[in-house]
Amino acid sequence: MSKTFKKDEDINDRKEEIFFAIKDLPIIDFHCHLSPEDIYNDKPFRDLAHLWLKDDHYKMRLMRAFGVEHKYTQNINILESNETTYRAFCLSKVKYFLASLENAYGNPIREWSKLEFSKYFNIDLPLDENRAEEIYDLVNTIIVNKKLSPRKIIEDSRVEYIATTDDLLDSLEYHKKLASQDFKTNVVPTFRVDKAIDIRSDGFIQYLEKLGKLTQVERSFEGYLKALEMRMRDFKEAGCDFSDIGIDYFPSGVADYSNAKSAFYKKFSNAKLSSKEVDDFISFMYTCWLGKCAEYNFIAQIHIGVERNVNQKMYALEGADQGYDIVSDSISIKNIKNIFNETQKSWKLPTVIFYALNPCFYYPLVTLAGAFQGVSVGVPWWFNDHKNGFKKYFKVISELSHIGKIPGMVTDSRSFLSYARHDYFRSELSSYLAKFENEELDGLIKTAKDIAYFNIKGILDNKKRG
Amino acid sequence: MSKTFKKDEDINDRKEEIFFAIKDLPIIDFHCHLSPEDIYNDKPFRDLAHLWLKDDHYKMRLMRAFGVEHKYTQNINILESNETTYRAFCLSKVKYFLASLENAYGNPIREWSKLEFSKYFNIDLPLDENRAEEIYDLVNTIIVNKKLSPRKIIEDSRVEYIATTDDLLDSLEYHKKLASQDFKTNVVPTFRVDKAIDIRSDGFIQYLEKLGKLTQVERSFEGYLKALEMRMRDFKEAGCDFSDIGIDYFPSGVADYSNAKSAFYKKFSNAKLSSKEVDDFISFMYTCWLGKCAEYNFIAQIHIGVERNVNQKMYALEGADQGYDIVSDSISIKNIKNIFNETQKSWKLPTVIFYALNPCFYYPLVTLAGAFQGVSVGVPWWFNDHKNGFKKYFKVISELSHIGKIPGMVTDSRSFLSYARHDYFRSELSSYLAKFENEELDGLIKTAKDIAYFNIKGILDNKKRG
Amino acid sequence: MSKTFKKDEDINDRKEEIFFAIKDLPIIDFHCHLSPEDIYNDKPFRDLAHLWLKDDHYKMRLMRAFGVEHKYTQNINILESNETTYRAFCLSKVKYFLASLENAYGNPIREWSKLEFSKYFNIDLPLDENRAEEIYDLVNTIIVNKKLSPRKIIEDSRVEYIATTDDLLDSLEYHKKLASQDFKTNVVPTFRVDKAIDIRSDGFIQYLEKLGKLTQVERSFEGYLKALEMRMRDFKEAGCDFSDIGIDYFPSGVADYSNAKSAFYKKFSNAKLSSKEVDDFISFMYTCWLGKCAEYNFIAQIHIGVERNVNQKMYALEGADQGYDIVSDSISIKNIKNIFNETQKSWKLPTVIFYALNPCFYYPLVTLAGAFQGVSVGVPWWFNDHKNGFKKYFKVISELSHIGKIPGMVTDSRSFLSYARHDYFRSELSSYLAKFENEELDGLIKTAKDIAYFNIKGILDNKKRG
Repeated sequence: MSKTFKKDEDINDRKEEIFFAIKDLPIIDFHCHLSPEDIYNDKPFRDLAHLWLKDDHYKMRLMRAFGVEHKYTQNINILESNETTYRAFCLSKVKYFLASLENAYGNPIREWSKLEFSKYFNIDLPLDENRAEEIYDLVNTIIVNKKLSPRKIIEDSRVEYIATTDDLLDSLEYHKKLASQDFKTNVVPTFRVDKAIDIRSDGFIQYLEKLGKLTQVERSFEGYLKALEMRMRDFKEAGCDFSDIGIDYFPSGVADYSNAKSAFYKKFSNAKLSSKEVDDFISFMYTCWLGKCAEYNFIAQIHIGVERNVNQKMYALEGADQGYDIVSDSISIKNIKNIFNETQKSWKLPTVIFYALNPCFYYPLVTLAGAFQGVSVGVPWWFNDHKNGFKKYFKVISELSHIGKIPGMVTDSRSFLSYARHDYFRSELSSYLAKFENEELDGLIKTAKDIAYFNIKGILDNKKRG
Repeated sequence: MSKTFKKDEDINDRKEEIFFAIKDLPIIDFHCHLSPEDIYNDKPFRDLAHLWLKDDHYKMRLMRAFGVEHKYTQNINILESNETTYRAFCLSKVKYFLASLENAYGNPIREWSKLEFSKYFNIDLPLDENRAEEIYDLVNTIIVNKKLSPRKIIEDSRVEYIATTDDLLDSLEYHKKLASQDFKTNVVPTFRVDKAIDIRSDGFIQYLEKLGKLTQVERSFEGYLKALEMRMRDFKEAGCDFSDIGIDYFPSGVADYSNAKSAFYKKFSNAKLSSKEVDDFISFMYTCWLGKCAEYNFIAQIHIGVERNVNQKMYALEGADQGYDIVSDSISIKNIKNIFNETQKSWKLPTVIFYALNPCFYYPLVTLAGAFQGVSVGVPWWFNDHKNGFKKYFKVISELSHIGKIPGMVTDSRSFLSYARHDYFRSELSSYLAKFENEELDGLIKTAKDIAYFNIKGILDNKKRG
Repeated sequence: MSKTFKKDEDINDRKEEIFFAIKDLPIIDFHCHLSPEDIYNDKPFRDLAHLWLKDDHYKMRLMRAFGVEHKYTQNINILESNETTYRAFCLSKVKYFLASLENAYGNPIREWSKLEFSKYFNIDLPLDENRAEEIYDLVNTIIVNKKLSPRKIIEDSRVEYIATTDDLLDSLEYHKKLASQDFKTNVVPTFRVDKAIDIRSDGFIQYLEKLGKLTQVERSFEGYLKALEMRMRDFKEAGCDFSDIGIDYFPSGVADYSNAKSAFYKKFSNAKLSSKEVDDFISFMYTCWLGKCAEYNFIAQIHIGVERNVNQKMYALEGADQGYDIVSDSISIKNIKNIFNETQKSWKLPTVIFYALNPCFYYPLVTLAGAFQGVSVGVPWWFNDHKNGFKKYFKVISELSHIGKIPGMVTDSRSFLSYARHDYFRSELSSYLAKFENEELDGLIKTAKDIAYFNIKGILDNKKRG
């Protein structure tokens, strides 16, 4: 009789069973923006505002969308000397943030914030701006009592591995210090190359001068390439497994050594490069980067589809990473294809993971990945980190590729509390798989475990072995 | 036991409760294409064909998609002298339209048509072409008995405020006449600027000559800018709250006064402008328009993503607005961003509402809106005005912005019967919110009320206050 | 009491009723890539690998996505002389393919493979790589016992009509031979024009030389046009109803006879054409092609949104159609519109069916189709041939056009087993329609029958009559 009804019950039960099997697996967070210095210093968090709201531009954005006055949407400066001013500002910020959350139905930040409260403070987040002060004081006490610090949160979250994102000029001081300690989470750097490749940027020459100083190579195109490789070696020695790029476009240029060299010297002569010269340079550098990643056994992560700092006025006031980046409307799949083919002429392609900010890019990108062995499209990123975003991604990977081969979840976050997002991901993954109502639970659980932990674990273990 | 089952029941019940709370709220239709002249004259509708099918290009399109012969898909000319011919044509049209509706499952026009019948004629629409004559005569009697006229329908629909869309050369005669009467619905003009800005169009010079005549300014670039501002003032005096643009692209030009001025004079010399000159001119005029909207406290509405009159043969035969406009495949989010930044250099940004015809534009556009305070993406437009279109929109606003801040529904319609679409919107809104099954009903109802009426009400009240 | 619960039961029941009404209707497969030679020769299939895996690049792709070694993802060569090597290779291939399927939840190939086994071998496909040999031997016996050959499968699948896809240089030998036999399925050619129009391709001149030889026309632009028309006539005589194009872009050129002619002669002079010249040529040829399709009463099928052979290294190794084609990221709806308008200046538009590889193209394309009578967007293609792909398509057609007018399902396949996909389509169609819970079943069944069979049947019958 109650077949359909039982079915829904079953799906819920199966979801719970799948989730139960993966919820306590360790976390491998192979792409994030946590500060190795903060992890090393491990200072306890000052208060709720510091731990919960500082640097979290997702939260600033939501407050702005709700219409909060600019004064209160700005980032928190924990160095603010006066304790009273600091408290007043933080209290207002908590209050307005609670107001923003109250009716923000369907917004992931609302769900994450609740998860963060239940996971780390063991209390329900009340969505009532009038209780801001009460909450602020209550959580501050919890932070003190639990001695919440970066490492405490990392340990409580069962994080086994963290790949931070590091400028290739970084001294890697804190990574080295961390490695020499008995902190059991493996914290390794990621080789981020944008600034050394994006010849369009104003600071390019200065950046390369710093690179030259650091590596003591001669000032020439050959020296530049050599310096990059030296840094790659340093990162490798510091345990680096991943490289990363997030340039906002794929160039249509010819990936040719001599073209790139000419463009390089022209840039240093302070002449303005034509867009073809820019494209030729970046194209060539893409192929070098991909080829060298293969050689050094780095997994190449490519982030596409973001326009950064789009509001110049606010950028002038507040700088980068304050929630003024947006989703771009186009990629050029032809250019990506060409760069991959150019790379294959001189080098091998490395393992590549794409992250796409616009879900409209999934069809071209997932099929492109299917045409080059070792290339895949990673989990939803940033604006896509929500229930529908995950569902859309799981579907497109299932339909155009293989659901069982998803490399794994990354937070891509600046906030230590974001490990709650792994729980969120695992829950959504369980929901998605549970809906295959006629499939055996064992297979679904195996797949969930692979995606939650074992796929990326296997990749990293294989790298170590060879 | 019956948890899941009860849950579905609950969701239905909650939906009904939410809908009950908003269904009778007044309507603020802040963007439509109704004729102020028709509202002023308030002539009763001639018959069903006049009221239901005339000028409704959505319905012409559906008939064509069903394969109806061109003769019967054309617009109705109510001035057709001969009563017999008129009746024969209208009857055929009703008949073929019913045939088109019969199996058009999932098409919003089918649902709207049914709603229109139940709301305004209090009868069920039978989807049976063989009953065309019966229906035609029956409804004609109802139209006569109920004295259905523009104002009667507006009043019956509880419309509190109507912003029509008006050419900036419009004399505003009927708006003024309406304002001087005791008609309790506030009917105000919208300042539509396309024709005065789109320098590519053949009629640009003639249009500007008319503008010059009307405003009595000298023939110069300065005069042109002055004339536009004079008209803006006239519209403001006539109660205008909104300005509107629907140019089919965002230019990549430099928004510079002298470039724009040169392009302007070159156009008047009858020379052909290069595409860069066109772009420079339109870019500059966009920034002026946005800046002046801020100055005059007009809300700037931007419609993007439509290609108009794509079938030249049919355009030559039938003219504009006969259902030959389509969805475009790209926007340039970079160009929009640039125009906003250019505006911010010399002016303030006004409140802006985008309407996007292609749902693929939502991700870039909603995140762009999140980077410029006061900018938002409005309700689904035209081809998106259906259940899935609303759902997609509610989701994307929830996930990337704040569901509670949606400005409100607009019909964007040429037909008086379209107020039924507000009921449709409110019903879909209730369904969407009801699915947040763990949320308290009070908060959901508050949010529904805000979106259905109070958000736009508040915006207009605030404007009045200053 | 149990309203909601009953509703779900009802939907399932209704789905079954709709499916029951259409599941045994004949199949009209009006676009596929089956070999007329294979159909004519009707050789029984050698074994499971030959029948199930050969040439099926969907399956190769899935194996690669699962990470199978290149050796085993390659196509099967049934001419491989050594029986032992052949068996070993096929067994490994079956084994790895089963492994790839095991957890490929949501991948359509998993569902199709199961359907193929149940429909043609009457057994359940066990997803267990360890049973590969058992399955291989079992199915080989079935193939022998059932004498499975191309015609046997076509007959068992109730296929009434097959339009193959043929190079316009094809001798049509096998189509003619088939026509002279009493094989009751109508197997007709499709006039595929890409190679004769795509002036960018290296082989263009050689191709045209073969065309000249075959048609005995003089070497000139006029001769070229004449030769194309002669071939069109030959195809028409062989029963051809459809023409087909799959060039990877729509050009922005001016469709002008003399421009096209100049480009043509320049190409023959071995000079490099500018991109404008290329565009002018292809634009003109598009209009000719469309116009001639109208004249010869061919239905023009346009496939858009594919980038072919994107991995040059693998293309060099394996050639075309090995699963290295991908979804492109953009179309130019403006260019398509222009070509249609240019065609209408000199010719009539034929009946046109678009197939779009990127679902992001649906909104522009379905509305474009609504602006030109006789143009429609056909069923999901290739990477979209799955449950969500069908659902997305049904929705967009319902919402922007008319669900009842979908021309019908095509396999577009190289594999005889793909007729199972018609069952899959019919099942999804039934599910989609059944969800219109308040509609009368009769109307839904009528619509399902139209889409499954009678729409295309009617189109073909009408063509014959006139």
